[in-house]
Amino acid sequence: MTVKIVRYEHEGDAAWGVVHGRRIAPLPGRYASTADFIEQGLDEAWSSRPEQASLPLDGVVLLSPVTGGQQFVCQGINYASHVRESGMDPARIGFNTLFTKAPSSLTSARADIARPPHVRLLDYEVELGLVMRRPLKEAASIGPDQLHEWLAGVTIVNDISARDVQLPQTQFYKGKSYRGFGPTGPFLVLLSPDEWKRWPELRMQLSVNGRARQDAFCGDMIFRPHQTLTELSNLHDLGPGDLIATGTPAGCAARAPGKLVLWVMKHLLSEQAKWKLFIKKGLVNPAYLQPGDLIQATIATEDGAIDLGEQLNRVVAA
Amino acid sequence: MTVKIVRYEHEGDAAWGVVHGRRIAPLPGRYASTADFIEQGLDEAWSSRPEQASLPLDGVVLLSPVTGGQQFVCQGINYASHVRESGMDPARIGFNTLFTKAPSSLTSARADIARPPHVRLLDYEVELGLVMRRPLKEAASIGPDQLHEWLAGVTIVNDISARDVQLPQTQFYKGKSYRGFGPTGPFLVLLSPDEWKRWPELRMQLSVNGRARQDAFCGDMIFRPHQTLTELSNLHDLGPGDLIATGTPAGCAARAPGKLVLWVMKHLLSEQAKWKLFIKKGLVNPAYLQPGDLIQATIATEDGAIDLGEQLNRVVAA
Repeated sequence: MTVKIVRYEHEGDAAWGVVHGRRIAPLPGRYASTADFIEQGLDEAWSSRPEQASLPLDGVVLLSPVTGGQQFVCQGINYASHVRESGMDPARIGFNTLFTKAPSSLTSARADIARPPHVRLLDYEVELGLVMRRPLKEAASIGPDQLHEWLAGVTIVNDISARDVQLPQTQFYKGKSYRGFGPTGPFLVLLSPDEWKRWPELRMQLSVNGRARQDAFCGDMIFRPHQTLTELSNLHDLGPGDLIATGTPAGCAARAPGKLVLWVMKHLLSEQAKWKLFIKKGLVNPAYLQPGDLIQATIATEDGAIDLGEQLNRVVAA
Repeated sequence: MTVKIVRYEHEGDAAWGVVHGRRIAPLPGRYASTADFIEQGLDEAWSSRPEQASLPLDGVVLLSPVTGGQQFVCQGINYASHVRESGMDPARIGFNTLFTKAPSSLTSARADIARPPHVRLLDYEVELGLVMRRPLKEAASIGPDQLHEWLAGVTIVNDISARDVQLPQTQFYKGKSYRGFGPTGPFLVLLSPDEWKRWPELRMQLSVNGRARQDAFCGDMIFRPHQTLTELSNLHDLGPGDLIATGTPAGCAARAPGKLVLWVMKHLLSEQAKWKLFIKKGLVNPAYLQPGDLIQATIATEDGAIDLGEQLNRVVAA
């Protein structure tokens, strides 16, 4: 049985609780960060009982279960379907693309997403988020059956992206780091060792205004959690509460043009002309997010045994 | 008069002090992070007096004055001379390239730099580091004369880079984030409002085994501190102690090939073949760092009034 953690506003502060059905059992501990919760509150959370659920879930203001002081590491082009729609050949993806989002991009699963005034090509990316349990401070060889030793739980991440900033400027950090570009939650779902084995069965679905856009299983990912943890352990430190977003499948608004146009862009156009054309084509693509659009994102196993909840974020003009 | 802050090992813990000549006046406060020091220790530091300097600077083990919990934001291709050696046209750099390094890449100005076993093209980048003073949590229009309001001080950053990881994998984060790839310090140099006006006069110099490699004035940078702070304020939050590395001038080991080879690479080679050629050429370029190499980096005004100290880092095999 998973344990669903929520972080929510309570008397001007942030409180933590465990979800039972549609109610919350508040945790007595006060945790300033996700790291503090994971280091001090996990036992308390696992022992929470339904009869302690005193608050209606719908009556609280949700906050991101990952707090601002955590690292926010992301994998890019990690699903073959998204690699293909981006105009690349999955067989040639020989490395795990890593980058970061600024922690202040984190926001709740119910927050409005403000489109900055200069951003015209706003896109979504539903992703499975992994939340660290233990410090990882030296090279480790982590097997597929050891996820529970290193990871505390999973959450939904929407890696909102300003394509007209991200792609022409080549480094992804800026176009993905605007405040509010990382809806996370609603829950941090703690998994048992047996439940960790089921992560490939998690199905990600994202719709905009009720129309399906993304729908794929996490098991389709190219670089899998144990591989990414092993690689990161050889690179840099991770700590409890740090977030790894594992990449998005097909269905984003941004699509590579056809092969002929791609060839023309590569061989005949300057960098500037190429991106000017990309933006011009994007402006007539109705799939990009507009103020008023409602994004719904879910991740769950089909039997519902692992259910990460639902994000509902509305796009607004900044 | 600048105030030079050092962080150093003391009885198994980290202590903070002010440098007077070749001695340190320890600060009584214990600060767990650079944020804590800046929020609580600045007054204490500014009022430190030479007669309090009880420790020889050479007798302590230096630590990075920027601690691991801070954001580490970097600017790329921010000097025309480095843009040109990278095979690009400075006139076409229309945006401020931003990315991050993992905070655990931070290390001291005396630490050995371990070259990971699989890294073959290890490079250096001397940079002026800006350290935040105040929280920057909303859009601000920051003028060139307001740096002292937002910034606490400056430090030397060496943005060590594994070119054979960074460039073929397109996102800079991984190739620049290995543990120890960010020597920072030796000092965090606090500047008065008048001294902030002199940042363009700061001269960066880097040598390897005594041979000059980089030598340029910070005033040559393309996107200047007030512009970068203004842009970042529109993007994401910054807090006290966060570090912004402002880019490196010409002189790195990595150089773009000549125009003809560049044309061939762009038009006739696949991505994979292009990077294979890049690495093959790099392996016979003696400018890349090898185990045993000693990197020396300094930043100071020519009159010595602002002197950020000296980094001395030796490259070792991991």
